Amino acid sequence: MSLKELPFLFGGDYNPEQWPEDTWEADMKKLQAAHVNSLTLNVFSWSVIQADEETYDFSLLDKVIKLAARYDMQIVLATSTGALPAWMVNKYPDVTRTDINGRHAGFGMRHNACPNSPHFRQLASKLVAQLAARYAGNPAVVCWHVSNEYGGLCYCDNCASAFRDWLKAHYNNDLAAVNAAWKSNYWSHTFHAWDEIVPPTHLTDMIDAGTDKPVLGGAALDYRRFQSDSLLANFKVEKAIIRKVDQTTPITTNLMAAQKDLDYFQWAKEMDLTAWDNYPSFDTPSSETAMDHDLIYGLKQAPFMLMEQTPSQANWQPYLALKAPGELRMQSYQAVAHGARTVQFFQMKQSRNGVEKFHSAVISHTDATGEHETRVYKEVQALGKELAGLPADLRTSRRAARVGVLFDYPSWWGVEYSTGPSKQMAYMQQVHTYYQMAYDAGLEVAMVGKDSDWSGLDILIAPVMYIADQATTDKIHAFTRNGGTFLTTYMSGIVDEHDNVWLGGYPGTLRDVLGLWNEEWDARPPKTTVAVKLATGQTVAGTFLCEIIHPTAAKVLATYADDQLFYTGAPAVTENAFGKGHAFYVGTQLDKAGLSAVMAALLAAAGLKPATPQPEGVEITRRYSETHQYTFLLNTTNRPLTVANPALGGEDLLTHTTPEKEVALPAFGVAILQSTRA
Amino acid sequence: MSLKELPFLFGGDYNPEQWPEDTWEADMKKLQAAHVNSLTLNVFSWSVIQADEETYDFSLLDKVIKLAARYDMQIVLATSTGALPAWMVNKYPDVTRTDINGRHAGFGMRHNACPNSPHFRQLASKLVAQLAARYAGNPAVVCWHVSNEYGGLCYCDNCASAFRDWLKAHYNNDLAAVNAAWKSNYWSHTFHAWDEIVPPTHLTDMIDAGTDKPVLGGAALDYRRFQSDSLLANFKVEKAIIRKVDQTTPITTNLMAAQKDLDYFQWAKEMDLTAWDNYPSFDTPSSETAMDHDLIYGLKQAPFMLMEQTPSQANWQPYLALKAPGELRMQSYQAVAHGARTVQFFQMKQSRNGVEKFHSAVISHTDATGEHETRVYKEVQALGKELAGLPADLRTSRRAARVGVLFDYPSWWGVEYSTGPSKQMAYMQQVHTYYQMAYDAGLEVAMVGKDSDWSGLDILIAPVMYIADQATTDKIHAFTRNGGTFLTTYMSGIVDEHDNVWLGGYPGTLRDVLGLWNEEWDARPPKTTVAVKLATGQTVAGTFLCEIIHPTAAKVLATYADDQLFYTGAPAVTENAFGKGHAFYVGTQLDKAGLSAVMAALLAAAGLKPATPQPEGVEITRRYSETHQYTFLLNTTNRPLTVANPALGGEDLLTHTTPEKEVALPAFGVAILQSTRA
Amino acid sequence: MSLKELPFLFGGDYNPEQWPEDTWEADMKKLQAAHVNSLTLNVFSWSVIQADEETYDFSLLDKVIKLAARYDMQIVLATSTGALPAWMVNKYPDVTRTDINGRHAGFGMRHNACPNSPHFRQLASKLVAQLAARYAGNPAVVCWHVSNEYGGLCYCDNCASAFRDWLKAHYNNDLAAVNAAWKSNYWSHTFHAWDEIVPPTHLTDMIDAGTDKPVLGGAALDYRRFQSDSLLANFKVEKAIIRKVDQTTPITTNLMAAQKDLDYFQWAKEMDLTAWDNYPSFDTPSSETAMDHDLIYGLKQAPFMLMEQTPSQANWQPYLALKAPGELRMQSYQAVAHGARTVQFFQMKQSRNGVEKFHSAVISHTDATGEHETRVYKEVQALGKELAGLPADLRTSRRAARVGVLFDYPSWWGVEYSTGPSKQMAYMQQVHTYYQMAYDAGLEVAMVGKDSDWSGLDILIAPVMYIADQATTDKIHAFTRNGGTFLTTYMSGIVDEHDNVWLGGYPGTLRDVLGLWNEEWDARPPKTTVAVKLATGQTVAGTFLCEIIHPTAAKVLATYADDQLFYTGAPAVTENAFGKGHAFYVGTQLDKAGLSAVMAALLAAAGLKPATPQPEGVEITRRYSETHQYTFLLNTTNRPLTVANPALGGEDLLTHTTPEKEVALPAFGVAILQSTRA
Repeated sequence: MSLKELPFLFGGDYNPEQWPEDTWEADMKKLQAAHVNSLTLNVFSWSVIQADEETYDFSLLDKVIKLAARYDMQIVLATSTGALPAWMVNKYPDVTRTDINGRHAGFGMRHNACPNSPHFRQLASKLVAQLAARYAGNPAVVCWHVSNEYGGLCYCDNCASAFRDWLKAHYNNDLAAVNAAWKSNYWSHTFHAWDEIVPPTHLTDMIDAGTDKPVLGGAALDYRRFQSDSLLANFKVEKAIIRKVDQTTPITTNLMAAQKDLDYFQWAKEMDLTAWDNYPSFDTPSSETAMDHDLIYGLKQAPFMLMEQTPSQANWQPYLALKAPGELRMQSYQAVAHGARTVQFFQMKQSRNGVEKFHSAVISHTDATGEHETRVYKEVQALGKELAGLPADLRTSRRAARVGVLFDYPSWWGVEYSTGPSKQMAYMQQVHTYYQMAYDAGLEVAMVGKDSDWSGLDILIAPVMYIADQATTDKIHAFTRNGGTFLTTYMSGIVDEHDNVWLGGYPGTLRDVLGLWNEEWDARPPKTTVAVKLATGQTVAGTFLCEIIHPTAAKVLATYADDQLFYTGAPAVTENAFGKGHAFYVGTQLDKAGLSAVMAALLAAAGLKPATPQPEGVEITRRYSETHQYTFLLNTTNRPLTVANPALGGEDLLTHTTPEKEVALPAFGVAILQSTRA
Repeated sequence: MSLKELPFLFGGDYNPEQWPEDTWEADMKKLQAAHVNSLTLNVFSWSVIQADEETYDFSLLDKVIKLAARYDMQIVLATSTGALPAWMVNKYPDVTRTDINGRHAGFGMRHNACPNSPHFRQLASKLVAQLAARYAGNPAVVCWHVSNEYGGLCYCDNCASAFRDWLKAHYNNDLAAVNAAWKSNYWSHTFHAWDEIVPPTHLTDMIDAGTDKPVLGGAALDYRRFQSDSLLANFKVEKAIIRKVDQTTPITTNLMAAQKDLDYFQWAKEMDLTAWDNYPSFDTPSSETAMDHDLIYGLKQAPFMLMEQTPSQANWQPYLALKAPGELRMQSYQAVAHGARTVQFFQMKQSRNGVEKFHSAVISHTDATGEHETRVYKEVQALGKELAGLPADLRTSRRAARVGVLFDYPSWWGVEYSTGPSKQMAYMQQVHTYYQMAYDAGLEVAMVGKDSDWSGLDILIAPVMYIADQATTDKIHAFTRNGGTFLTTYMSGIVDEHDNVWLGGYPGTLRDVLGLWNEEWDARPPKTTVAVKLATGQTVAGTFLCEIIHPTAAKVLATYADDQLFYTGAPAVTENAFGKGHAFYVGTQLDKAGLSAVMAALLAAAGLKPATPQPEGVEITRRYSETHQYTFLLNTTNRPLTVANPALGGEDLLTHTTPEKEVALPAFGVAILQSTRA
Repeated sequence: MSLKELPFLFGGDYNPEQWPEDTWEADMKKLQAAHVNSLTLNVFSWSVIQADEETYDFSLLDKVIKLAARYDMQIVLATSTGALPAWMVNKYPDVTRTDINGRHAGFGMRHNACPNSPHFRQLASKLVAQLAARYAGNPAVVCWHVSNEYGGLCYCDNCASAFRDWLKAHYNNDLAAVNAAWKSNYWSHTFHAWDEIVPPTHLTDMIDAGTDKPVLGGAALDYRRFQSDSLLANFKVEKAIIRKVDQTTPITTNLMAAQKDLDYFQWAKEMDLTAWDNYPSFDTPSSETAMDHDLIYGLKQAPFMLMEQTPSQANWQPYLALKAPGELRMQSYQAVAHGARTVQFFQMKQSRNGVEKFHSAVISHTDATGEHETRVYKEVQALGKELAGLPADLRTSRRAARVGVLFDYPSWWGVEYSTGPSKQMAYMQQVHTYYQMAYDAGLEVAMVGKDSDWSGLDILIAPVMYIADQATTDKIHAFTRNGGTFLTTYMSGIVDEHDNVWLGGYPGTLRDVLGLWNEEWDARPPKTTVAVKLATGQTVAGTFLCEIIHPTAAKVLATYADDQLFYTGAPAVTENAFGKGHAFYVGTQLDKAGLSAVMAALLAAAGLKPATPQPEGVEITRRYSETHQYTFLLNTTNRPLTVANPALGGEDLLTHTTPEKEVALPAFGVAILQSTRA
């Protein structure tokens, strides 16, 4: 089945190997009753399939697939290479990782294969070849799922050696070029032979100060790139083996929000569609979940699989607060609103043992015997029924945001590798702050990378874009010159792609488009604020970092206004006309009022009318098919709210009513207004 | 000397090898003057006795024992295997442990012999054989003390191998049974050969997230059991060697409150009498010390040795607050009140060097030269005199509590190994909460295990009894059916002995006796409370965890009453009539007022009249000889208090008066009322 | 050039190897324009000089030195042994260190050569021999700088072996003497052969409880002494090689405030002059910086080099707050006021990459291209001009304080190695508290060691002088008997130099001079205070520790006054007449008011008139040449202050005015009043 045909899946991970065979059929019935139409199988079964290096036994999997197919389940078939069998670790110790403290892992856990272990690559390839040969063409298999939740870093000798090969490939086999890129004539770090280069660990060049701080930033950045590439190579190897025997079925793996270890923009290029696992905690702001969805959508600018979520609790969170009635449904629709083309769970049946035994599931411990049917099961069941009734074009409908937020993995790595300017620097928090600035203003956001297509954007916000390579700089120039509205902030444009600071005044290559240079910055101690005066006269608060801006062409929108500081009166926020567009700079971290003013100025510069601010507690998000617009109204709170109808005339697909000017939403209530596109 | 004859010992650890020989006799005089009648010798002298593998030199010990005997000291003779000589560690590196991070210890510290090191077992056995041969029959030796403060875990290859042997023995040599018990078809953990099984460490299957969290809970539980058994095997080996040549003298070792590493209920079976080291901190509640004493008493339901306490300060505590005048005396009598048959100190003479140099002692640094006699010395002296005057039958008199609190080591291990329901889960705190519920109500408590004799109990409280095996379930059924009053709480009855969740609704096998099932739980964020309404109309507060109870037969005693929560109105506390008895369930952690109401309900159900609540700050505890009742009144505060006389007509053994209706107690004051038994 | 001729240097570290050669000359011009007259070169160039074991290439250094000389730069020439080349670590792994966790370092970082590595010593010696041969006699080289910021400890096998050699040398080859000194008959620690002795690590005898706590304190103290001696031996080896070919040029290395790893009093004996790196944080009290300067001055009682400071920000601090206008200048003059004979920076030109890229510099990233000239550059330039105009005799002028504060490295090590009396024990904080007591009272302080010349002192304050050896005791006796005023505190006189407690009552050997003994101490929980009543009736607060003093001859100056504590009424502060002098004892940590009263009593006892208290925010410090007194007035705050003129008639060298009775100082303002000496 091709990606285009892939239906809306409702289901998720099912691990029958954990259960007696005589319970499987009852599970099928109970899942079918919950409108489950898809199962993800074989995620962690390697040791069940392979008792030793020579023996493969697919009999259990054969039975399960046959049974699932009998119940019309669409199967997402995993390759089961996400966890290693014990025999393999004992026989080939190089298959596990060495951590940043130089400790080599023995058998246990999961997601811990060394990506550069020759034995792992060989054994995984053999397994996948067998799996692909056996199940390719099985009509029940609608999607391949390679490994599971890739992530983590390894620092073993095989990785060290592979790193040197990676460097040879990326630096044209020229060690002098590496020395030059890393500026390694620093603390006697000049390398005179390739084998002098070792991974940056706590035993080598990485200071362990709570957070890791490398001596050679350029080397550490390259090691990050290399490790992301190494795991991606694992993915590509497995994908290629499958593709050889199955040319149509989509192949993916499940990502995890914006996790730091992998450059997902590079990964997405190799994936047929993106997929991710969404585990908001009880105190996660809805804007953060929205941002995560938008990032996954943004990786390919295309609908994605919501491959995992939990019906109620995720075992690894510090406090297992339950999801209240309606909360799971609201979260599921939030995913769909942002571009999900599936709603899947981890997992179908709650494990009796193992670290995830308190992770909730469709069939919980309580449901498992058939004595009781729980609230959570019933909510899943109702949701399944509802989803099955949604129009088919929703599944592949697309997002259309005109505001972009730029997300850049190397900047994340680099800015958090830096010692300074402040231990409070946290890239994800910074990005979320500016995402939220737009979200609160009622705007939909496209999360984009440096290589993404920005052509649909009116406004591009690049918070803490620490690394400004020349190509990105040129692209920003073009974007702005052609009428775009660009904004960047403190700690942007600081270094090139090798962590070398741009000389002559921050923000380096971005000075032209912004019409300014910064002379110095002042990191503020925690719990202190600096008054910032807006052009309107309003005073807002700055924190974290204050940059002292010298406009060369830019207009001043706000100034520091604290008489205790010598830089009172200096510009804090500026706007620069550049070509047909405008470029904004924010030199300090503003409070919500300050950000709201900045957002208004961006809209004005972009010639857009002010958006209706997001109603407090309600998110409004849209998807577009060829024929319809779908407007999602999501009450993210546990109290009833009424909001203005943003899509008058649209029919609510859930209530089959056409709301008037106002839409009343119960606690965690959802409306999906279907309108015909003009 | 037999256990029966063992007199009331007053004394403790004396380490003459730390001091010039010419100071020993002065020590004896000073100790005798303090009414010390017992010395614990040879606790850490291995390297003094053995300069190398071939040479034994007992001359120092001979001299010390001879001298001590000359001063009529009753000797508790330790085997000195609690700390390893340096030569042994250098020669046989396997004698020390490998920690959970895979780091193997070199020479140093103490209490760090690998229990499964063949060299350690062999060398310890040879030493103990020599000691036993030499000193068995010495009339001054009244008790053998094996090693010291057993505890700690080892993860070395010898332990790994011994663990596999332990598993073979416990699973009938059947690897499939191990896989089944641990449900190891989980994350590819299926074992196909015994040697694939490795200890759960941070390098294998134990997540290091501040607290340790295993992937396979069943395996981690077994590793705990195995390690406790391994150290117990060390104890048994030494005991057997001594017993071969000395058939009468009691053999023991010193336990440490309820420390987590050893299942003391298993240990107590092998000990002739229990003994423990009591080190309350300046902020330890008196109820906690009481609970610790009751646990040690409860292990064998028999009087115990208070083998160590400090006259004033314990060096390892964060703030070395002194014990105020009277505080040591009060604490000593609290021990006696709860069943101590000795009052012993660590130590007789304060070390001049070493990590314990600031641990106080009977002969302190200040007392050591004879220039000064300190307050603390004088208090010890006065106490010694007083204790010597107490009646002989007090020593072996027994406790008689009708309220039991169930303590279960595997539940402790298992519930804290779980990820979820809350990072605030702390088993000891939970047990103490319910101990204190009874203590505050003026009730005496028997700490019991699952295997203990419950026949003397009217009420059995089993807080957080996470593991409910079938045998315990049956025993609880019988207890309740026969008229007992049983209470258990949230997070009880969750799993079987292999950490496999009971299906069909919590609390698993306890649903019948309780007349209910729980559908789900809601872990509450810290610092939040949930209103709970009692049947009386009183509103109290719940925290930590709220379980949503479905009574099938139980009566509702309290309900959630928070309109923000969808489960408002659901039962929070219930009572179920079962046979001739009653079974209570507490679904959330209640505040003191809530617990007080629960305690009252328990008493009512048990047909007991309400106890007089513990007077604030005063503990009243009783012991019973064949002829007398001894009622201890302990003012645990530093201010004078007056309380109603609970034993009218009794004579205070300390003041030789017969108090009226009220007893006035000075700060830290004590009265021991002797009454004739009816 | 001899030390005597060494001019006032203004400049600092310059690392041209990090930059293209064609930028060097522009740097020289820019530095010369900033009045820079000195460059520190070759600090981290080992790998640039030596590409492998056989090849030395000084061509870059030759060029740089030639260029610098052409610009009249006085060169401080470093030996570049502070960081190891990668080839060396790969070829000879023993050159790096093994940490306290037993982890051996690979290539990376700096300051991490094992001091007892034979390969390191050999290779460093060869390099230095080449450097010395090449550049000795070069007239531009005015000072040799050996290695860089020595510090850190190693626990490798080479160090273990060298430790045993060190012990043999210090204990006359007598293992019994080691056992006796360490009192190792403790926890079976008796050593029967030298090779049983191992370094105290987390894997051997050092408890890892957040802070390190050894079992054998005496052994740990000796290991500290040995490690300080080992690095000092490295320094001496390099120095001797240079001295062989250059008999006159001063040789030094840069110290770091009072860092714990090295006994700087021992080091200073081997250094021609002291030098240090001053990095106050935005919240460092000026009294702490003053103390640090005074310590470095005190090591040799002679002017020192301020070898590093930052023009604005130090990258490794948690919040990179900038230095406000004038702040750098004030800090520079504070250094000079306390005895600096140079003002040097790290560094001349800000690195583009590497962990220090955000460490500010004279030529910053912004200045580097010549497009902009920053505020910070201009402040450095103005300062350079000003400094160049100061009189020549200021450079070698001396301090003259009559109040001494005793600083003792072994006491620092020993008291923080102790478990007890309180986890809040921090030696540096304690010393600073008493330094500040004098500083706040307007007194200048000499920081002295036990071996220092105390003859110029009227008052000697020895806070937390944990170790009281007999020689120091005798010296204190003599000092006091001859009319000196001595003060010591809680936790003084506790142990001898091997960490063996003095028996018979604290403070051991100091009891005589103080006329008292302490019976016991009471560590107070955090956030609690004890009322202390002064003889004047004033009540102040005690915290941290309360010692219960028994005066034998001393007069009581203050008593505890808290009715909740049994020792209310007991003495807290005493004064004892001893010979012609007086000895004070402070038994609890007093608040500022209490310390102020103590300081007044000290002055009265010393027959000194009360000093004018330091004006809030202004420091007044003096230096004396043969002909002049220089009085520095330093406004350490960011607001203008006016103070009484302490040197009427003196001319302010900075404004060239002669102030009246009052001196007005702008924010961070400075005046230097030059007066003729009587």
